[in-house]
Amino acid sequence: MRGLLLLAVCATLSPAYADEGMWTFDNFPAAAVKQVYGADITPAWLDHVRLSTIRLSNCTASFVSPEGLFLTNHHCVEQCLAELSTKERSPLDLGFSAPNRQDEQRCPAQQADVLIGTENITDAVLKAGSGLDDAAANNARKKVLTSLEQSCEQSSAKAKTGRLVCQSVKLYQGRQFFLYKYKRFTDVRLVFAPEADIAAFGGDPDNFQFPRWSLDFSILRAYENNKPARTPDFLQIDFAGPSANQLVFVAGDPGSTARLQTRAQLQFERDITLPLSLMRASELRGRYIQFGKASPAEERIVEAPLNSLQNGIKVRRKQLDALNDDALLAGKSAAEETLRVSSHLTGADPWHEIESALNRERFLYVPYTFIENGAGFSSALFRDARLLVRGADERRKANNERLREFTEASVPSIERDLFARVPVYPEFEELTLSFSLERMREWLGPDHPVVRKLLTKESPDELATRLIAETKLDDARLRQQLWVGGKAAVDASHDPMIELVRLIDGDARAIRKRFEDEVEAPIAAAAERIAAARYKVQGTNTYPDASFSLRLNYGTIEGWVENGTPVEPFTYLDGAFERATGTSPFKIPASWQSQKARLDMRTPFCISTSNDIVGGNSGSPLIDASGRIVGLMFDGNIHSIAGHYWFNSANNRAIAVHPAIIREALEKVYGAKELLAELSGINLPQTSESPDNLLKVRASAPQ
Amino acid sequence: MRGLLLLAVCATLSPAYADEGMWTFDNFPAAAVKQVYGADITPAWLDHVRLSTIRLSNCTASFVSPEGLFLTNHHCVEQCLAELSTKERSPLDLGFSAPNRQDEQRCPAQQADVLIGTENITDAVLKAGSGLDDAAANNARKKVLTSLEQSCEQSSAKAKTGRLVCQSVKLYQGRQFFLYKYKRFTDVRLVFAPEADIAAFGGDPDNFQFPRWSLDFSILRAYENNKPARTPDFLQIDFAGPSANQLVFVAGDPGSTARLQTRAQLQFERDITLPLSLMRASELRGRYIQFGKASPAEERIVEAPLNSLQNGIKVRRKQLDALNDDALLAGKSAAEETLRVSSHLTGADPWHEIESALNRERFLYVPYTFIENGAGFSSALFRDARLLVRGADERRKANNERLREFTEASVPSIERDLFARVPVYPEFEELTLSFSLERMREWLGPDHPVVRKLLTKESPDELATRLIAETKLDDARLRQQLWVGGKAAVDASHDPMIELVRLIDGDARAIRKRFEDEVEAPIAAAAERIAAARYKVQGTNTYPDASFSLRLNYGTIEGWVENGTPVEPFTYLDGAFERATGTSPFKIPASWQSQKARLDMRTPFCISTSNDIVGGNSGSPLIDASGRIVGLMFDGNIHSIAGHYWFNSANNRAIAVHPAIIREALEKVYGAKELLAELSGINLPQTSESPDNLLKVRASAPQ
Repeated sequence: MRGLLLLAVCATLSPAYADEGMWTFDNFPAAAVKQVYGADITPAWLDHVRLSTIRLSNCTASFVSPEGLFLTNHHCVEQCLAELSTKERSPLDLGFSAPNRQDEQRCPAQQADVLIGTENITDAVLKAGSGLDDAAANNARKKVLTSLEQSCEQSSAKAKTGRLVCQSVKLYQGRQFFLYKYKRFTDVRLVFAPEADIAAFGGDPDNFQFPRWSLDFSILRAYENNKPARTPDFLQIDFAGPSANQLVFVAGDPGSTARLQTRAQLQFERDITLPLSLMRASELRGRYIQFGKASPAEERIVEAPLNSLQNGIKVRRKQLDALNDDALLAGKSAAEETLRVSSHLTGADPWHEIESALNRERFLYVPYTFIENGAGFSSALFRDARLLVRGADERRKANNERLREFTEASVPSIERDLFARVPVYPEFEELTLSFSLERMREWLGPDHPVVRKLLTKESPDELATRLIAETKLDDARLRQQLWVGGKAAVDASHDPMIELVRLIDGDARAIRKRFEDEVEAPIAAAAERIAAARYKVQGTNTYPDASFSLRLNYGTIEGWVENGTPVEPFTYLDGAFERATGTSPFKIPASWQSQKARLDMRTPFCISTSNDIVGGNSGSPLIDASGRIVGLMFDGNIHSIAGHYWFNSANNRAIAVHPAIIREALEKVYGAKELLAELSGINLPQTSESPDNLLKVRASAPQ
Repeated sequence: MRGLLLLAVCATLSPAYADEGMWTFDNFPAAAVKQVYGADITPAWLDHVRLSTIRLSNCTASFVSPEGLFLTNHHCVEQCLAELSTKERSPLDLGFSAPNRQDEQRCPAQQADVLIGTENITDAVLKAGSGLDDAAANNARKKVLTSLEQSCEQSSAKAKTGRLVCQSVKLYQGRQFFLYKYKRFTDVRLVFAPEADIAAFGGDPDNFQFPRWSLDFSILRAYENNKPARTPDFLQIDFAGPSANQLVFVAGDPGSTARLQTRAQLQFERDITLPLSLMRASELRGRYIQFGKASPAEERIVEAPLNSLQNGIKVRRKQLDALNDDALLAGKSAAEETLRVSSHLTGADPWHEIESALNRERFLYVPYTFIENGAGFSSALFRDARLLVRGADERRKANNERLREFTEASVPSIERDLFARVPVYPEFEELTLSFSLERMREWLGPDHPVVRKLLTKESPDELATRLIAETKLDDARLRQQLWVGGKAAVDASHDPMIELVRLIDGDARAIRKRFEDEVEAPIAAAAERIAAARYKVQGTNTYPDASFSLRLNYGTIEGWVENGTPVEPFTYLDGAFERATGTSPFKIPASWQSQKARLDMRTPFCISTSNDIVGGNSGSPLIDASGRIVGLMFDGNIHSIAGHYWFNSANNRAIAVHPAIIREALEKVYGAKELLAELSGINLPQTSESPDNLLKVRASAPQ
């Protein structure tokens, strides 16, 4: 479960049962938990957990000390580790340990958000679209969301909270809209990461498998004003961990689920979205692997993107398996029929309206995906160029007239990404751009007008090679200059990547407009009517689909039965040594081998729990009823992938790192005493900073 | 339509209509053709066409002169062209033209079969299995087929025909079994091939597209006793070509169709077979492309395999699209229900029996595919090693006790392949073997016993590298020695590839046995009962599914209507120059550019026809009612891919090279006067052979 999966969004058909459900904090079923487990989940408990939980760019984390220290997965900081790499040295492979706070290394593009408050804006949003046709309503709502976000941010700047980031969240397929208000930390520094060999032990073969032995944790610290942030709300780690059958909770930001998509939407995913995505990802995997074989430098360049790609392949492959179960699709049809009848729906049938929109999407999906949605131009420098060209146009418009990704509220994130000096590897950019141009030609055909424009006299390879060789956008200062210079500066640029974006931007915007008006808008309108019907029948006894916003769920420490054989909920350190083959991804690093005699081989390593989580929950704290951390979520078992569509309590399991192995590692393998003391709530005196020390330890490897 | 597609086999549900149908020569609907088109297709016409038509390893061809000259596609000899390549020189890219017969180059592994006669053996086969359970019947039939093939070959050796190759053919899902008796030419020489740039103009982007401009032809000659074969049955080329709406015929060997698979079988293909195949092929494509970028030598190594892979991807992608049309699957269910009722079937429901077998196959398919069926060991040297190990074991058994691919009748082909000195590229072998081992670990999981055996201490990369570095099986003499030496020689060998085969052969045979007994046998039995029911209702008014055996179909020269726009049935040379971009695959070679002024730009180039063909028909002659060649089949339009499952007469079109462009090319571009004279039936005196000439022209490029 390496990355946040960006798929579409919905909520469950049948009332939630067992341990199913990704509940919002304002509708957590505390009474049910009390009844079944006897635990009291109070408003104070909920507030404390909420304020201790952090949303990262594509993961979750939680504060584990009052001084801004936070815990997340190793795979959640892979991007940061890659950005801190040089051609000579890779903290991703070698690990990283900062002996002192002065040695903590800033992650160039990482930020951390804490949810301070929420505001229900449903009435304002629904009013904005009322009486309009689908496309007009869809536009009107986007405008009002932009305006509400903007005024929220402006008023927060004057309040005692300090300036907040305000983001609208759509819940229950449009039955509710909220503003979520975050305190954002933009200075986030790396404190500790183990070597990739032990953090991702088992690699892609073991991904989504259990039993498991991956030490998938890392530790960072939030800073404010160049000092460790004060974070009075944090979760103490209980290094003893949980016991079997114990009640546990997971707080975090599940990325997306599609449990309430209609049967027609699931079928579209089965027939169109997943096959295209799997074929593209598979070919790209082949190209990455072969590219990485050229030399260790190339191997390092593709390491992080390859990991994330392989994760995506496994997820989508099992999603396709899930959707190929015709019985489940038939069950979906039956449930739709039941709801249609029991809710006494009048007017046009919303399921049919979604089906009609999807029939239009069958013709729009491929050009939309390649031309507007990036699949035809996989290149960081192309993305930068498009941000510059579109940003220059959009920022001249009134805030609520802009494309949603260019609103005032979005500008700080864009600038952060655009101005960051992250390394760009031209040979890798050439690979991805040439690949995507070639596949665009394949899927749109050589006679598509956009393909003809691009490839009049050049092959995909030639075009990609020329663009990457001649563009200057790998220079962060130039990007900043063009962004700040606005439309005049961008218009004056003859950078070939900028010119490429300009050449096709009219086509790209046109296909996006058609997609939004003819597909997105009618689906949104119909889905709202279905959501209203469901609310009429089922009330508030349900949870919304995941939307990469804060949720809480409960479950117990338990395994499951696989083909008649029980799978126990804990693994132990000795199992890792038994599984090791000596070659990656089953290689235990030298740091562990050399300390092997000192290690307690019966240290618990990983945990299986029945919590209902998906991608985005990576790095989530596993919490006991008293609010202590008893595990660190990092994956699900293979059955959990179908959880994107439905929750099967019999075999859907989440997987966590056990706190005991984190302590064993920090204490005996890495000798990170001060860090361990801070995690244990013991105040050690900070060692004084000597220039000597500073030199010695910058980007140092664990011992 | 680059290669023969090896998919499963069946026949049509509804009686054939319009121009649908891949008819056997003994059941060709001559009366219908007479009625609709007024043409007389006599037994003599049929015999002449049959004896003029050739089956190649994965294509069709036809004799075009009485001296063994035959015509097929360029893509059908791609393998031969690659085998004749050296690191320095590639006849695949540069083309090939033999000025004299002495310069014609033998294709190391090509053979050519002509169907001399057929014999109905249905009774003997059905009798062999009668009264036995499915698995036993399946085995008993294989034995009787082996015995019948053997006695046919033995008796032919004593007859005036000379020794024939006898192969059993199953038609109508087991309602008929035949022996097909072939005269086999094993000395086949390359006479002419244009450059790949013009032969495959448009490349993968234009594959399965029309309008089209691919000069996809090549010319070879069959030899006997080191002299051109005497071939009194041949088809004269009519260089004027056909007119629009003219009646035309295609003779040839369509590879496989699945028009009568049950709904459950199609669903299995949709859910399991096609996704796995597409993901594997896509990744391999990525690896090939990246591999080919290292240098021109690497590019040449992957050229032919990449072309064939890309063809397979396009075919399977559009097959998946076809199967994702739920309405068509629902129609299939309805037709099954109709047949179930109208045939008054008694006993167990055969459709349910197939479904049960497929439910077992869901668990067997992946291990069978990887461990037994080659997907886990993609390597020419592994295949050789397995032939040696298994061949040594199997040849000690009675002929009819052997695995079917090791019967006496199969031995000559095995020896031909095994002893041929075709180049093996170690770096390419490493790529494919490492890829397939890695994917086997992915799909079976790292804990599968076979995976554990193989990868105890090595990664897939390490294992592949070691095996390819240390095996000596790239030496054809060693392979011959081990084959001839039999079990003693093979047992004594410690070649690491032989040892690898030995290590897993027990597992591989076991999974094959389960697959044959639990899946293949019950499906065969149930399919036969369905075929009998259909025969009862529909009689002989149907054609069997394709089985890479000789068929004939009829149609007319016509285009179709695409999204409301008519597509004309002819293209012309000027269109190729308009389409050219100057870069591959839209590059017209220098030979054509330099002669451009002399060329007639209105020369017809390609033709669209309504004939019902599939992969395997590549190289088939397009024949008019008087038996002359008016085109050379090489592809279908994009809609023709769904023809694997059903024929849509509204838009399924076949694509041929027009004979006029072949003449224009031979005459004006390549100056191949003698060849053109032979093709035109004009006797030019053979120029005398001078050693000088010989040296000059060996493997020469076209002028």
